[in-house]
Amino acid sequence: MRQKLRQVQIKLMRGLLDLVILQFLNVQPMHGYKIITSIRKNFGVYFGPSTIYPLLGVLEEKGYIKSEWNLNSDRPRKVYSLTPEGSNLLNGTEESLNHICHRLTSIGLNRIPLNGTLKQPQNLT
Amino acid sequence: MRQKLRQVQIKLMRGLLDLVILQFLNVQPMHGYKIITSIRKNFGVYFGPSTIYPLLGVLEEKGYIKSEWNLNSDRPRKVYSLTPEGSNLLNGTEESLNHICHRLTSIGLNRIPLNGTLKQPQNLT
Repeated sequence: MRQKLRQVQIKLMRGLLDLVILQFLNVQPMHGYKIITSIRKNFGVYFGPSTIYPLLGVLEEKGYIKSEWNLNSDRPRKVYSLTPEGSNLLNGTEESLNHICHRLTSIGLNRIPLNGTLKQPQNLT
Repeated sequence: MRQKLRQVQIKLMRGLLDLVILQFLNVQPMHGYKIITSIRKNFGVYFGPSTIYPLLGVLEEKGYIKSEWNLNSDRPRKVYSLTPEGSNLLNGTEESLNHICHRLTSIGLNRIPLNGTLKQPQNLT
């Protein structure tokens, strides 16, 4: 079961990876490797370069992030930052996710007996 | 942008559909069509039979839900209910999702100036 929960966690994270990346870049511009280590440190799940770099490419192609070369570091690094479109998308996505999380919780609440009686099933529909 | 946000919402929901279905079945057993209408009414997103029934099949195959025929309704209906394994998975998944949502929020919080100064980037890593 522990193994399965781990898989679930990774699957959930995979579905939310673009949101997570946009959120990191909303704080500060980052190069790809920094994004990879930040995800691992903040979420305890490792996604490698073969997952992250293509995703960064897609997000850049769609105009949500942009990149420029930083030539001042020890070796040249591509640094990604959020565009205004990415910022809009991030806000909307966060809102959607919060909405979904709240609805999920409110479904669960129907399980809890209120005044000793379980809410009627029709409350669900 | 509105169109894109809608796509994002649908994509998020698609990634969380098994969690949503398990959550509904945790409240009460349901037949497939009821699940479809409950998702639409609770989340404002429509997923049709061609999405939901295969997903129910997978969840049943994995042992998270079970089904039996209800012959008492006007026509026979397959009614799905949660198994103990499904209940465990649901609890673990909810926990993971909450964890991810909290971490996401706490990343965002770094944006808010504290005492007038922005937190240092190293707080992120």
